Parts: sequence; C-alpha cells; structure tokens
Amino acid sequence: MNYPLLLRFLGTICLLIGGSMGFSLPFAFPRFAERTHLPPAAEFEQQGAYGLLASMMVCFIVGLAFRFFGRSHRQGGHLFRKEAMAIVGLSWVSATVLGALPYYFSGTQTTAENPITFIEAMFESQSGFSTTGATVLTDLETPGMVPHCILFWRSWTHFLGGLGIVVLFVAILGQGSAGKAMMRAEMPGPTKDGSMPRMQHTALVFAAIYLGLNILLTFIYAFEGMSAFDAMCHAFGTMATGGFSTYNRSLGGFDSPLIESTTIAFMVLAGTNFTLLYLTLVGGPRRLLRDVEFRAYVGIIGVVTAGVVFFGMKAGDDGFGSLATAARNGLFQVVSVMTTTGYGTADFDTWNNFGRGILLLLMFVGGCAGSTGGGLKVIRHVLFYKILHLEMERAHRPRVIRPLRISGQAVDDPLLAHNILLYFCLVLAIFVFSWLALITFEPNSTWGVVESDVAQQSEVGKQLLKGTLDDKLLDSASAVAATLNNIGPGLGVVGATRNYAGFSQGAKLLFVWLMMLGRVEIFSVLLLFVPSFWRRV
Amino acid sequence: MNYPLLLRFLGTICLLIGGSMGFSLPFAFPRFAERTHLPPAAEFEQQGAYGLLASMMVCFIVGLAFRFFGRSHRQGGHLFRKEAMAIVGLSWVSATVLGALPYYFSGTQTTAENPITFIEAMFESQSGFSTTGATVLTDLETPGMVPHCILFWRSWTHFLGGLGIVVLFVAILGQGSAGKAMMRAEMPGPTKDGSMPRMQHTALVFAAIYLGLNILLTFIYAFEGMSAFDAMCHAFGTMATGGFSTYNRSLGGFDSPLIESTTIAFMVLAGTNFTLLYLTLVGGPRRLLRDVEFRAYVGIIGVVTAGVVFFGMKAGDDGFGSLATAARNGLFQVVSVMTTTGYGTADFDTWNNFGRGILLLLMFVGGCAGSTGGGLKVIRHVLFYKILHLEMERAHRPRVIRPLRISGQAVDDPLLAHNILLYFCLVLAIFVFSWLALITFEPNSTWGVVESDVAQQSEVGKQLLKGTLDDKLLDSASAVAATLNNIGPGLGVVGATRNYAGFSQGAKLLFVWLMMLGRVEIFSVLLLFVPSFWRRV
Repeated sequence: MNYPLLLRFLGTICLLIGGSMGFSLPFAFPRFAERTHLPPAAEFEQQGAYGLLASMMVCFIVGLAFRFFGRSHRQGGHLFRKEAMAIVGLSWVSATVLGALPYYFSGTQTTAENPITFIEAMFESQSGFSTTGATVLTDLETPGMVPHCILFWRSWTHFLGGLGIVVLFVAILGQGSAGKAMMRAEMPGPTKDGSMPRMQHTALVFAAIYLGLNILLTFIYAFEGMSAFDAMCHAFGTMATGGFSTYNRSLGGFDSPLIESTTIAFMVLAGTNFTLLYLTLVGGPRRLLRDVEFRAYVGIIGVVTAGVVFFGMKAGDDGFGSLATAARNGLFQVVSVMTTTGYGTADFDTWNNFGRGILLLLMFVGGCAGSTGGGLKVIRHVLFYKILHLEMERAHRPRVIRPLRISGQAVDDPLLAHNILLYFCLVLAIFVFSWLALITFEPNSTWGVVESDVAQQSEVGKQLLKGTLDDKLLDSASAVAATLNNIGPGLGVVGATRNYAGFSQGAKLLFVWLMMLGRVEIFSVLLLFVPSFWRRV
Repeated sequence: MNYPLLLRFLGTICLLIGGSMGFSLPFAFPRFAERTHLPPAAEFEQQGAYGLLASMMVCFIVGLAFRFFGRSHRQGGHLFRKEAMAIVGLSWVSATVLGALPYYFSGTQTTAENPITFIEAMFESQSGFSTTGATVLTDLETPGMVPHCILFWRSWTHFLGGLGIVVLFVAILGQGSAGKAMMRAEMPGPTKDGSMPRMQHTALVFAAIYLGLNILLTFIYAFEGMSAFDAMCHAFGTMATGGFSTYNRSLGGFDSPLIESTTIAFMVLAGTNFTLLYLTLVGGPRRLLRDVEFRAYVGIIGVVTAGVVFFGMKAGDDGFGSLATAARNGLFQVVSVMTTTGYGTADFDTWNNFGRGILLLLMFVGGCAGSTGGGLKVIRHVLFYKILHLEMERAHRPRVIRPLRISGQAVDDPLLAHNILLYFCLVLAIFVFSWLALITFEPNSTWGVVESDVAQQSEVGKQLLKGTLDDKLLDSASAVAATLNNIGPGLGVVGATRNYAGFSQGAKLLFVWLMMLGRVEIFSVLLLFVPSFWRRV
C-alpha cells in the first residue's frame, strides 16, 4: 500500500469538502434563504455561519496535515487497484465525518429538547452524500431548530454526492461489472480502453450534464413558484435521487401537480444511465428506446404503477379517490421509491398491503446502472432474468452453450453472471444480519412500547403490544432496506411522514454504515476491514 | 422425449403408491390404532378403510393404464438426463395427487363444519411426501374428524417421502451440485463414477440405514411410553424431518423431557448427510467430527440455541423461567426448525423478537445436504461463506487465484460456486413473488379482519386493524418460508399452535406448489413448465 499517495489524495478530498462548505455561507443571510411557504428567515443565523466556518477550518487543517504527511509521494507514482479502492472507501469515510461537522458545530436541534449528537450529525451527513435522504431532523420549519445555511448544506451534500457518483463511479470506475458491461456495450467509437484522457473527457461530459440538469431544474422549479432557495435545494434532492426537502411534509408541502409532474420527469432522468443520457443528447431519443435497461426501467415503473393504482382504488386507500389522483399519487410514489429518491407526497404506509409490499420490494430494484440512483440497479435484475433463462435451458440441454447477451451483443466478461449473483447474495446477507441486529438490540421503546406498562395490559392492550412488536420486525426490515438501498423513508416508524430520530444511537450508526455500503457497492468499504488488505505484499 | 419410457415409469410409481396405501389398512382396526393419551378408537372406522380401498383402486387402474400405453418402450432404452428430470418432477406430481385420494374419499373433516376439499387433500398429501408437516386439519383428536387409518397414512407419507428422498435424491441423483460435491469428497474407494451397480448398492445401504433408524426410534418411543401407533407415526415424522404428529399439541402433548430429548437426538441424525452416517457406521465417530458440514450444522444449532436461551431469559418469555426449561424449550425448537422438522413443544410465536427473527432465518438454513432435511442446506451456506472469503481476496489481489475447497480438497466442479449463488437467488425470487401474491390476493379475513367492521372502528380498533394487517405481511412471509423450506409451522396464523386451515383455496394451492419446489430443489419442477423442454430435439 502506497501510504503517502493515499494521504495526499485524502488531504485533497478534505480541502475540497472544506471549500465546498463555503458555498453554504451566503445562505446565512436571510435574503438568500427565503422559503416559499414560510416567512423569510428574520434574524442573521449567526450560529449556523460560525458552525460552517469552524467546520471549514477543521477541514483545511486536516487536509493540509494529510498533504504534509504525504509529501514524500513521488510525482508520477502509479495508482494501483488497491490504492484506488482504499481511496474510494476512505474518501467516503472522510466526507461523512467532515460533512457532519457543520450540523454539530451549528447547534442544530433534532427535536425541541435534543441538540444533535455527533452520530446523528454523521447520519445526516452520510444520508446527504450517499443521496439517501433519510433524516433525523424532526422539524425543518420552526425557527431555531435548523439554521438555513445548514439546511442548504444538507441539500448541497446531495449535490456533491451525486456529482461524486457521476464522476467517480460512473465515468472513472464504471460502477461495478454491470455498469462496465453496459458502458462497453453502449459507448461509441473504437476506444473501449480506460485510457486517461478518455476517462477525463467522459468525467467532464458527465459532470456537465449533471450540472446542466441541476440548473435547468432549478429554473423550472423557480418558474413553477418556488423561491430560489427552495428551487435549488429541491433540484439537488431530485437530480441526486436524494430526497432531502426543506419542508416537513417533503414535496407534498407544495401540493402542486405541476411541481410533482416536473419532479417525476426529472427523477426518471436522474435514475437513467448517464452514458445513455449523453448518447441521447448526441444521437437522438431513439437511443433511449433501444436500450434494454431503460426499457426495463420504464416498464417496471409502468407495470407497478398500474398495479398500485388498481389495488389502491380497489381498497379505497387515502388519495386513491379518483383515477386522476390515484395515478398522480401512485406514479409519484413508485418513481420516488424506484429511483431511490424518497420524496413523499402521500403516506404510503397507510396503503393496502400490495402497495406497501411492492414498494418494499421496489427498494431493491433501484435506478439504472451509471445513474445517481441507488439500489441493486435495473440492469442487474435484467441480467438475472437472462441468467435464469439460460440456466433453464442448460439444465435440459447441457450441450447447448449460449453466451449472456445485452441488446444482442454477447457479454465479454466471463465473470459477469457470477458477480451479479454474488452481489445479490451479499446484499441479502447484509440485509438479513442488519435486520436481526436491529430487532434484537433496538429497545422496544422506539416503537412506543413502555416496558413497565406491559404488566398492566388488558386483553386489548396485549393485542396492541403484539401488533407493535410485529411492527418492529416489519419496520426494521424496511428501515434496513431503505438505508442500504439509499432511499430514505420506509414503513411504520420510518414511514413517509416520519423519520429516523427515534432510533438509538447504535442503530443510527448501523444506518450510517448501511448507507455507505449501499452507495459504494459494498466491496470497497468491506475491504477496508480486511487486515490483509493493508499489508504490504 | 421418450414418452413410452416416461409412461411406464409413472405407471410403476402409481402402482407403488397404491400398494403402499395397503399398509394403512390395518389401522382401521381399533387395536392397531390405539393412542397414548386418548381412549382406544372405539368403532371400526369404516369410511376411512373404504376411502383407502377406493384410492388403491384408482392408483392401480391409473398405473396399469400408464404401463399399457407405455408398452412400446423397448427394453434397454436409455434413460437420458431429460427423461430423468421429467420422471422426478412428474412422479412427485403423481404422488401428490394420488396421495390426496385417501383424505378425500374417507370424508376427513378439516373443521367440524367443513369436509376436506381436494385442494386441501393435495396440501396434506404434498406436505406429507415433501416431509414438510404443515397441516390443514384443525383437530386430530376428536372422533369423527380424521379416521385413524388416514392419520396413519398421513404419517406414512412422511416415511415414504423420506425414503424417496434418501434413495432417489441422495443415492442416485446426488441432490444438486452441493450434494454431489460432498459425496465426491467423502465417498471412499476409487470408483467415483455413478455406475449402475454402485448406485444400486448405495441406494440399498441408505434405505437400510433409514429403515433401521425408523425401527430403532419406534422402539425407543414405545419404551418411553408411547403406544405402538403413536410411536410409529412420530418415528416417521422425526426421521423424515416431517413433523406430522397424531396430537393437536404436536410433541408438546406428551410433555415428557425424555421423549423430547430422544426426538432432539434423532432430528439431528435425520438432518445429517446419509453418506456421512454410513461412513460413521463403518469408520467410527471421528468421521463425523472431521466433516466440515456436520461441524457447521452442530455449531449453528449450538450458537443459535445459546442466543435464544439468553434473549428468551432476558425477555422473560413463556417457558424460559429457569435455565433448565429455557434450554429444553430453546434447543428443541431450534433443532426442530433448523432440521426442518417443525414439531412444536413451545409456541415460539410468543417469544421475543430475536427468537422469532432467528427462527425465521433458520428456516432458510435447513439440514445437511444428503439428508431428509429441507431448506437451503448447511453446505451451501458454508460454501457461500467460503466464496465470499475468496472474493474479498480476489478484489484486492486479482492475480492470486485459489480454488474453492471443502475439507482441504479443491472442488473439481467449476460451476459449483455459480450454482450455489444461483440457487440462493432463485429461492429468494420465488420467496419474494410468492409473498407478494399472498399478501395481495389472500383476503384479510384470514387474519380475522371483517371488512364491514372497518368503518366503525374506534381509535383502538384502528390500531388493532393496522397491527393485524402488518401481521399479514409478516405471517405471509413466514408461511412462504415454512412451506418453501419444508418446515411446517411459521409465525402468527401459521404459528406452532395453529395451522393452514384458514387460508383460501388459492393460497393452499400456492403452498402445495412451494412445498414441491422446495423439496425437489426447484429445477426439476420448473422445467416441466418450459415448453421447449417437451419438444423433441
């Protein structure tokens, strides 16, 4: 392991994060932080600004120290696979910790009584960078709870996280074998190698597309009646498939079909492969429709929405009164969960069991590979289906050997099928053990059960208690799914109208870990905990 | 596809099933069907005997017809892979349908009001042959509900199912790639091929061990105070890891620590690889302790039991008062679920969330490969762990290539890792979609929710309703897990003290399908539904 190189890289990351905090400073002034539904922030939110400044100082000091200790690094030293993985993992850890400082130093309150703890600040920071959108802040609207510049920093971490994903994972690392296969199959021209100038070019193009869509969406939101502050924050949340809002009721607070349909369109875009967006810009929309992953992605959204609308209307759920409102609420929520954004306009926890069940499953589908969306990615599911199909044939015709194909082209990576199956199993294993840990160690009081009351329960009380403890099994599963797949809201105590504030500090730390695992596709983080990884070979 | 050959085989299967029904006939006479806790069956249970005779006649007619239409089969025609798979799948289907006849013709009652439907009879038959032990019969003790000879047939199907598994899947087919790998690694001597005389010898040895253990256990049970009838039925249920009892309270009805500890020991044996049992008989118990799968199997039982006892005593659950009773109840239930037997002595649905959660997960572990136990099998989990370990190394040292090893020997099947991962994913996909179907189409009334009452709910009523509908999500998951892994009882409405009678006919058919899929390791059944499988190539 080339430690000096590693330190220099990490130092640069720290400096960049410190610098990017500067962008939030102007929003400490009320005229920049005006919000649509709320009176303009009246007083200069001093503490928030001081918190930001203090955090910036820490970032700069740590960054410079890292670069100082890494100064023995020779120019032109090679970046090997191991170093690259260590950098990805450690950068993410550094970003989480440093990104937590503004919350912690600014005296943000999670509830009226509780100032934010450092673990909670890390939760919020990780949720931002990983574009999850889960929150421990119970009230964003009452003055004195969260300074406006911190609210901007919160959404800004979405923007930064999304940018990092698009540039780092999509353009440079190719985001896992599934992403790489898609990229190879789709990128035009003869150069399929990962040469340096080519990677830099791709990274720049993707960053430009991402930035352009963010600016475009900000203007559209502003045009549709949001203040500049709200428009920016929500554009960041949408394009990064994050889901942080500046209102307690999330996007439902605007109650505007126009804003909702705009958001649906841009969530779908944000969940689309950026390579494909680029090719569409260059080659026209036919590229989009010919792409197997995009077709599956839109197809799943369509079919699931139809199911949700049908069963929602049949069960007479809230918000499914007429076909129009049912379609509006159903489509918004399906797209929001599928793209792993996690905005809410309706409380899907009150829906019928099909609706709740399918949304829970949809969390594991996720967006397209090479997008800012999280989850397992659509292409993996498409390929899984194809693998099954080939296996069925292989089982009764062992001599017929067909390769795995994407859009008619044989996949040239012999390990692709293996990697996809392995990834599914790994996600499942992490999901299952996290769930078990959560239901075992999380106190029942998180679900509103006061242990001392249990003794004096009546028959009805006992049944209520049983129901609550069953909720614990279910809600915990949804909380793990929602953080591991970078969505945000789940069912029950983490439902669309609620948040993660009630969990114990240990559970919050677990969620921080899960959000990170989900975002960096597990391996780069898990590797950091393997001792042999750090040994000099 | 060689249809005449297929028909002749199926005809033989039908004749064998018809013949085996004859063994239940004597138990229509009270002196053979005396039960331990109940007065001897007083009257000659005529209808049961007539039902059996009618079923036998159907079996013989169908069997002879099949053999007649398959008479063009030339002697010595080859049995190809396709034919073998079709025979396995179709034999299982035939056994399910024919095995349902005795229940249907004998006028068995599922509840006091309802005679058994044909789908319910198929459920009971499938549950018997697949050694699941899930039941739709709500009362086994009241005279006039289930004739005693039918009760014997029910347990007898466990015996036949277990015998079929040991002979067909273990000795002849090697039960999937995991089983095959184990077999190759463990079987002594130079002949590792699947030559005919060798397979016949193995099949005979395994059948002898299975039969011997059944007889031994019957005598032990009788010695411990059971009547001959009960001893036989429970021996069949234990050795086949089935779980049908002749009492409503399952094995808990005896309330005997002696019987329970005997059952624990024999459940562990029944969940052990039969190849290993044979080698232990020949080469002494050191073989047992050197086997990696057996060590993992016993290790998991030990660790999980310790956890269940610890958290059970901490939460003060029913039956966890003293360390002795806690250990007794905990160990029994852990072994019962892990080996996929499904006997109950305690209602684990009332346990704390760790206990319920871990038992739900344990359902997917299952017994050892090459045993009568169901589930995913311990060896697959062991190999999955090893695959993960190798992958972690491969990720940061791509040039170091190590083979997968079982007990120090490299596995020579290059597809083993792929097959294991594929199997996990396939089980997961089937689990998920069955769950979704169940929560969507099963009426809420199965969970005791009367739709018309919903409108007039009070606040407490609403919460109770919400709790019940959350139960639906959880109970359905456990019901799917318990049938797909051939266990039997699950959580909530399918808990240890309850049964599957309340489900709709459609759901029961789904469970029949899941039990079959789980038992024949999915592919041979799924293949029957692929049109190209049936085409002549």
